[in-house]
Amino acid sequence: MKPVCLVIGAGAGIGGTVGAKFAREGYHAVLCRRSDEDGLNKLVEGIRSEGGEATGFLMNALDESSIEDRVAHVEKEIGPIEVVIYNLGAQIGDRTLADTSYKAFEMGWRLATFGLFRLAKTVTPYMEERGGGKILVTSATASVRGNAGQHSHAAAMGGRRLLCQTLNAQFASKGIHVAHIIVDGAVDAPDTLGKMLGPELFQKLRDTRGAQDGLLQPEKMAETYYHIAQQHRSVWTHELDLRSYSDTAWWNHD
Amino acid sequence: MKPVCLVIGAGAGIGGTVGAKFAREGYHAVLCRRSDEDGLNKLVEGIRSEGGEATGFLMNALDESSIEDRVAHVEKEIGPIEVVIYNLGAQIGDRTLADTSYKAFEMGWRLATFGLFRLAKTVTPYMEERGGGKILVTSATASVRGNAGQHSHAAAMGGRRLLCQTLNAQFASKGIHVAHIIVDGAVDAPDTLGKMLGPELFQKLRDTRGAQDGLLQPEKMAETYYHIAQQHRSVWTHELDLRSYSDTAWWNHD
Amino acid sequence: MKPVCLVIGAGAGIGGTVGAKFAREGYHAVLCRRSDEDGLNKLVEGIRSEGGEATGFLMNALDESSIEDRVAHVEKEIGPIEVVIYNLGAQIGDRTLADTSYKAFEMGWRLATFGLFRLAKTVTPYMEERGGGKILVTSATASVRGNAGQHSHAAAMGGRRLLCQTLNAQFASKGIHVAHIIVDGAVDAPDTLGKMLGPELFQKLRDTRGAQDGLLQPEKMAETYYHIAQQHRSVWTHELDLRSYSDTAWWNHD
Amino acid sequence: MKPVCLVIGAGAGIGGTVGAKFAREGYHAVLCRRSDEDGLNKLVEGIRSEGGEATGFLMNALDESSIEDRVAHVEKEIGPIEVVIYNLGAQIGDRTLADTSYKAFEMGWRLATFGLFRLAKTVTPYMEERGGGKILVTSATASVRGNAGQHSHAAAMGGRRLLCQTLNAQFASKGIHVAHIIVDGAVDAPDTLGKMLGPELFQKLRDTRGAQDGLLQPEKMAETYYHIAQQHRSVWTHELDLRSYSDTAWWNHD
Repeated sequence: MKPVCLVIGAGAGIGGTVGAKFAREGYHAVLCRRSDEDGLNKLVEGIRSEGGEATGFLMNALDESSIEDRVAHVEKEIGPIEVVIYNLGAQIGDRTLADTSYKAFEMGWRLATFGLFRLAKTVTPYMEERGGGKILVTSATASVRGNAGQHSHAAAMGGRRLLCQTLNAQFASKGIHVAHIIVDGAVDAPDTLGKMLGPELFQKLRDTRGAQDGLLQPEKMAETYYHIAQQHRSVWTHELDLRSYSDTAWWNHD
Repeated sequence: MKPVCLVIGAGAGIGGTVGAKFAREGYHAVLCRRSDEDGLNKLVEGIRSEGGEATGFLMNALDESSIEDRVAHVEKEIGPIEVVIYNLGAQIGDRTLADTSYKAFEMGWRLATFGLFRLAKTVTPYMEERGGGKILVTSATASVRGNAGQHSHAAAMGGRRLLCQTLNAQFASKGIHVAHIIVDGAVDAPDTLGKMLGPELFQKLRDTRGAQDGLLQPEKMAETYYHIAQQHRSVWTHELDLRSYSDTAWWNHD
Repeated sequence: MKPVCLVIGAGAGIGGTVGAKFAREGYHAVLCRRSDEDGLNKLVEGIRSEGGEATGFLMNALDESSIEDRVAHVEKEIGPIEVVIYNLGAQIGDRTLADTSYKAFEMGWRLATFGLFRLAKTVTPYMEERGGGKILVTSATASVRGNAGQHSHAAAMGGRRLLCQTLNAQFASKGIHVAHIIVDGAVDAPDTLGKMLGPELFQKLRDTRGAQDGLLQPEKMAETYYHIAQQHRSVWTHELDLRSYSDTAWWNHD
Repeated sequence: MKPVCLVIGAGAGIGGTVGAKFAREGYHAVLCRRSDEDGLNKLVEGIRSEGGEATGFLMNALDESSIEDRVAHVEKEIGPIEVVIYNLGAQIGDRTLADTSYKAFEMGWRLATFGLFRLAKTVTPYMEERGGGKILVTSATASVRGNAGQHSHAAAMGGRRLLCQTLNAQFASKGIHVAHIIVDGAVDAPDTLGKMLGPELFQKLRDTRGAQDGLLQPEKMAETYYHIAQQHRSVWTHELDLRSYSDTAWWNHD
């Protein structure tokens, strides 16, 4: 039975691509996403056509017990969850405070912060019993600084970053590696950036900036995710940033 | 009509003391706290006996519309809210992940993060229309780093810190001064630390460490809160730390 | 004999103005600057004409023993140094790496980092013997992040910031308050910004942005410097930022 | 002709081991260290005995032109410098301010900060002309916070960290990848930790904490150094931390 790499938030960008990388390296990729069954099936079949193992589930992480039940089911029916990729974002674009509803603010927290808390509470007992595991959390610039219009996103991601630190403080010594990966730039991701921009603008961005490697490429990101998951326990990375060579770092101005 | 200093979270420690300081300086202090009507009345009467103006309200910030209705009522019946002291904490002591319930985690966020969001959405339109205002947010070490057992607290305060940055990014240029005050040490506060420790231990701590100024004294903190609220708009402080001379800074080890 | 406020780097902007504030509050201001004897005399006379005490010295902090001898002399002849304002900057404008000479890089360090180290080594024994003192260090955005063209400045100020933390770690418990004040914006300072821009451009900036309080005003900054120096030892601030309400914080983009 | 991996500070710990890793991957390792010719020869021969290419040089980085001449010589005689590992430290143990001499403080800066500046000024023109290169800088906890007794070390490393950010800001878009690697823990390094502790204590530490992977293992660190050097330019990491699973992160207390 292969170890499982469970991906929470498996679109055609980071989540699906990282899952495929782990599948190529010998994991059973369990891909969970909220919607688009066709897209999900395509990801699963893509992995299988390469000889890898994968299973896909539609799952709305906002639903009560959704994450909890999925973890229990995977552990029972598919295999031991050795790696989790927590990839749910909460970016809703820039909105003024007046335009950010209570509901939007709460949803950001439910997806980005509370969902990770639920996942961690559910999966760490399995990992701890087996002596180890890895929880890799995709994060964003908004986890390290607030910016105009990012009321919901920054509050959610800022909370998530410190949650990763509390998890690390409790679980590192028990063999559970928690890593916080700050994605500081636009990702070449059709299911997130692509949908935000629409097909035409997205293609144009790919043809210009993307053609110069100015968009983060998910297959290349996956190399680093996999590297972190393989680090020897004497040399774990808790936090790192990822950005294109042509992007300005968040702490600098153009 | 005096300008109002609205204190959300007005115990006998930071909140009540800062309110009293502003009352001495000419504000009408509106003190809100969840429980202990006697304690509240004592704070209000203390201010009045010095010749200051104060009004007290019991208010559970978790209740729907509680903050919103209070702001509307104060603006209509008491005076223009020039200063808000947001002083609700979410410290529940160190708990392992297993011992931190979903409810506790959510409550931390509701008090420390969402409450500030609700307050800001409600009060900034008034302030913006008047060309200015001040929102001073009491914060904690947990806003800048997670630590073992602080799952709920660090996630809530880390989100709150970045929320303060997003508020600052949108509202500073409109004359609304948002300040994030990192309290990095134990405060000589009977209603929080005192209740956590119990009367005997608390008195003992006061007699030893407190006698050497090793506990942050609320009356002295109030001086700095007031100073920040008076800073000229060409020289605003967004973030600062406060700790006793005898304490080790959070980034150092003993 | 009045306590002394020693200002290292006393131009007509922050240094001289903070010195004058402390003189008004009862200190003997000792103003040190590298050049412009007329400018120095004007500052000293300005203080005296208000009834304050002040003495001025031309001093090149790069000269061997300059800071050391000045401290010894002041302690012996003028009074006990209770407060130091370390105000030497090392901003030389943006320069590419190729255009930043070894000499310029070293000079940045000598003024901004090594000079503070020399000052601290010299003055802390006096302060420690008397049970306390204050060292307020004017700092810059470059102390918290590097940026293009800031090779010398950021390296020097980044080192200085952590030096302030090491000084705080050793000396806070001995009653010596070290504060690191991050000035995140352009200051209305004729001797630094004024000289960098030239008289015409500087006047124009004052008439536009300055007229809207978009330049930090030294007299207003001095209020905060003085407040920090008066904080009770149970509530010391080690670090804070100062910027105009209309400026974007360094961690945000326009 | 193989591309060169130039290691400045090549002891038997991180520097030599990372050099050997790059040699195994097809680079010519050029190892520079101040002293111990026998130790240097052993590292070089170790690499050659595995079939790799290596050259060793004794070099005192404090000597004028030492780094500059070495770079020029390597470029002319050995091969194009594609990767630099800047591995010079400045840790001298904890010393009070009184016990930290001007000379020690300056030496820290010369090795940790100025040396990197000299290296960068010398090597970036070659890299820029070739369209790219990598500068990997080994760093320490002292680069992100000062601590008691770390006056020299923290000032030097804090400056170095921001220098890395300025280099990144200027050179990333030109294809030069600058990475700042924060080593947050004790390394199993005979030439640094080993010499600080003496042979007996060091062996004991290895037999206890080291046997539990509680010391960072240089061969495992080398995997991450190599990974960073191989990152696709659309996904570069500028900063990451490395620590043993059993160590407490610097921002936490035991």
